[in-house]
Amino acid sequence: MQEVLRIESMIQVNLGHSHLTALESKALSALDRALPSGSVITDPDVRAAYARDESEAEPVVPDAVVRVRSTDEVARAMRVASAHGVPVTARAGGTGRTGGAVPARGGWVMAFERFDGIDEISPDDLLAVVRPGTILGDVHAAVEAEGLFYPPDPNSAASCTIGGNVAENAGGPRAFKYGVTRDWVLGLEVVLADGRVLSLGRRTTKGVTGYDLTALVVGSEGTLALVTRATLRLMRRPEAVRTLAVHLADEAAIAAAVRASLTAGIVPRCVEVLDATTLDLLRGAGVPAPAGSRALCVVEVDGEARRADEDVERLGNALADAGALEVLVAKHEGDRERLWAARRELSRTLRTLSRHKLSEDVVVPRSRLAALLARCREISEHRAVRMPSYGHAGDGNLHVNLLWDTPDERPRVVLAIRDLFEAVVALGGTLSGEHGIGALKAPYLPLEQSDALIDVQRALKATLDPQGILNPDKIFPRAGHGGC
Amino acid sequence: MQEVLRIESMIQVNLGHSHLTALESKALSALDRALPSGSVITDPDVRAAYARDESEAEPVVPDAVVRVRSTDEVARAMRVASAHGVPVTARAGGTGRTGGAVPARGGWVMAFERFDGIDEISPDDLLAVVRPGTILGDVHAAVEAEGLFYPPDPNSAASCTIGGNVAENAGGPRAFKYGVTRDWVLGLEVVLADGRVLSLGRRTTKGVTGYDLTALVVGSEGTLALVTRATLRLMRRPEAVRTLAVHLADEAAIAAAVRASLTAGIVPRCVEVLDATTLDLLRGAGVPAPAGSRALCVVEVDGEARRADEDVERLGNALADAGALEVLVAKHEGDRERLWAARRELSRTLRTLSRHKLSEDVVVPRSRLAALLARCREISEHRAVRMPSYGHAGDGNLHVNLLWDTPDERPRVVLAIRDLFEAVVALGGTLSGEHGIGALKAPYLPLEQSDALIDVQRALKATLDPQGILNPDKIFPRAGHGGC
Repeated sequence: MQEVLRIESMIQVNLGHSHLTALESKALSALDRALPSGSVITDPDVRAAYARDESEAEPVVPDAVVRVRSTDEVARAMRVASAHGVPVTARAGGTGRTGGAVPARGGWVMAFERFDGIDEISPDDLLAVVRPGTILGDVHAAVEAEGLFYPPDPNSAASCTIGGNVAENAGGPRAFKYGVTRDWVLGLEVVLADGRVLSLGRRTTKGVTGYDLTALVVGSEGTLALVTRATLRLMRRPEAVRTLAVHLADEAAIAAAVRASLTAGIVPRCVEVLDATTLDLLRGAGVPAPAGSRALCVVEVDGEARRADEDVERLGNALADAGALEVLVAKHEGDRERLWAARRELSRTLRTLSRHKLSEDVVVPRSRLAALLARCREISEHRAVRMPSYGHAGDGNLHVNLLWDTPDERPRVVLAIRDLFEAVVALGGTLSGEHGIGALKAPYLPLEQSDALIDVQRALKATLDPQGILNPDKIFPRAGHGGC
Repeated sequence: MQEVLRIESMIQVNLGHSHLTALESKALSALDRALPSGSVITDPDVRAAYARDESEAEPVVPDAVVRVRSTDEVARAMRVASAHGVPVTARAGGTGRTGGAVPARGGWVMAFERFDGIDEISPDDLLAVVRPGTILGDVHAAVEAEGLFYPPDPNSAASCTIGGNVAENAGGPRAFKYGVTRDWVLGLEVVLADGRVLSLGRRTTKGVTGYDLTALVVGSEGTLALVTRATLRLMRRPEAVRTLAVHLADEAAIAAAVRASLTAGIVPRCVEVLDATTLDLLRGAGVPAPAGSRALCVVEVDGEARRADEDVERLGNALADAGALEVLVAKHEGDRERLWAARRELSRTLRTLSRHKLSEDVVVPRSRLAALLARCREISEHRAVRMPSYGHAGDGNLHVNLLWDTPDERPRVVLAIRDLFEAVVALGGTLSGEHGIGALKAPYLPLEQSDALIDVQRALKATLDPQGILNPDKIFPRAGHGGC
């Protein structure tokens, strides 16, 4: 069906502000009839706003933006899309880092941001039922107001949505203690490519009835099904949080500090690291740091206040023994917030250092973190590309940023990325800890996964979406497509 | 291909001790040639020993037992099975409760118990790589000797195996704090129906590269792929464990005691309950219980010794406030072990009360536990079937046993099971928390899952196993098959 569309698109028909084939306009008219008035938007400015996400992925302007507000509307839209073979790319917050929300083959962007709200919070069953367009920060606030807690906390919490979090299997610093989105999703309502609505999973923490399709959909980047409800597992809110800023004399001290944090007989909720460049950006944002500090570990504990204070003391001693330059304890919420606000802004602040930035979020087994940091320094020197790094060291998950200014530098960046991915795979790691594969990393998937495994995944995708209309050209490499 | 086999099986060929069709013997000869000498066993006594598991499922004697010892042997066997369309049912410990390891359509039982051993334990990366036939208890012992901990602990730990645990997504009492097998499997090596070997998942805790096929295989009951290696996540071993035996004046007090355990500001590692009948069995096994006790909660905490002791005190007070008759603290490892040994034997001890027993392991959202217990009492009275219950109350996961002696009682048992499942689904629960669906619960799947959801699961199964040779007739209902 895709092939038909490709051929037909040679015959362009001018329909006011957009150039559509006869088939494409027919599909769009059918969609318009199927949905409430105003749902289908073809205004060029609106469409342009939905052409890209927060990555360097090539923007693609969709033929239309479809604003959905209910499961029924999603199902109706997918029945029309499926009948006409139109590609559909789901999008809500648009905060993705790998081009996942870019409508690579055109078609329609299904915009979920108005399909929001929290249907239920149950303190007794420790769960919440949430619509896909709900902003994660709003979920945090709502459950915390009830004394409850939803741990996943990607940096973009203030603008990313639950639907996107499920699609990408979002993580964040607290994943070290609490796990990623997958670990907190009990069940999903989803719409398949053909418009069928399925209820997956359950409202109980345990359950082994049938295949775990909830886990299959989580992290599938909008390629298998569209999420219309998520039943999220909650926990009771920890009474207290304490944060240690552990300053280090050089980047080589990072591995020892991380090790000390992990072996002090405590499970911290975060163990973050920042290298010299990213620490300087934090300094610039007003976070206090001793003059000699060239790297930072941020270690956070939570729990009962008295025990959290004990933990801070024990961790502080262990880190001092491991050679930390200085350990600062953020005692006040204001200090914590300033540190984390600067940390959350790092990705954006890094953009001020160069015209272009690509952020990779590779993961290695924890014991290989030092080796990975060393390899990053070698690659950076060898390819002459600036590669400031920070990330979730407790999980072995490093955000390696590649910065460049001029087009002639780009070939070296591409080589550095391949070097990085090869190093990560050789260290027993994986290409992505939380950003997903999307469009940008798809060409590199074969570095990590065998042809047989990729074939099986494509076959499963084809079973659920035989026409390949859900977010096409994502995750899996296209033939003959060789670099970012 | 199945249909061909069915028809061919009318023409029986006598081959010594077994009756096989010409096609079946040809397949068996090919298998024998493909594997090391002695791997293929057709001795009737051996085959008979592989005809059943630890459930009431109808035994079916396989045509052969195939003892595998390596990934390569599994792959070779599956290539032969696939070429000849022979059903293959994986089995290791044979401790299943729903007939999962019964070769429902005959064919071959693939026996994994000699494909055992631990390839690697990494204290630094907190993981172990384990072969499928390894007994869970041996994994526990090996990792605990290194100061590490693998939480899943089904009752059958002394005889069940990692392969079976993965296939069934095994749980156990500690799942309340630590989650089930799925939460502790980082990656799998599997063999598909056609003999292809895939490496799924990873050695890192985080990772979002491609679809989560690891989670799809965990709990798929041997119907999608055969597990040949499991990379298990580990944690550091908790320093201390403390156990409270909370005696209650009547079963109606259970819900309040569970609630008190869950809201004392502590996350216990287990919150188990036993009703009057099962408590009496524990008494019979020498576990001390006050005369007036008619129900028991077992609450266990772990962690640093000093904190665990504090937790015991706090929990003890909360439970006394909630009306507990008596709270006994097992201070010595011997007391703990006696209690748990009796608890682990409950399922077997219950068998002494009647000729037949079916054990259901339903789950309801935690807040509906009292309602479920009340419904069980009503159903037991209404259908005149004894239904002693115990289980993992913290997870809302109750093991409801149905006891009977004579064939004329069986229709009432069947009605009681349907009543129970309908009640569970009405309470927002699920048919199985850890035993799986297997053969016994397959007819009831449509009570919980929609036709569309069952269709999608069948389609995914057909994608991975187009001939339907991996553990056929499990999970999904057969047409016209209406009861246990």
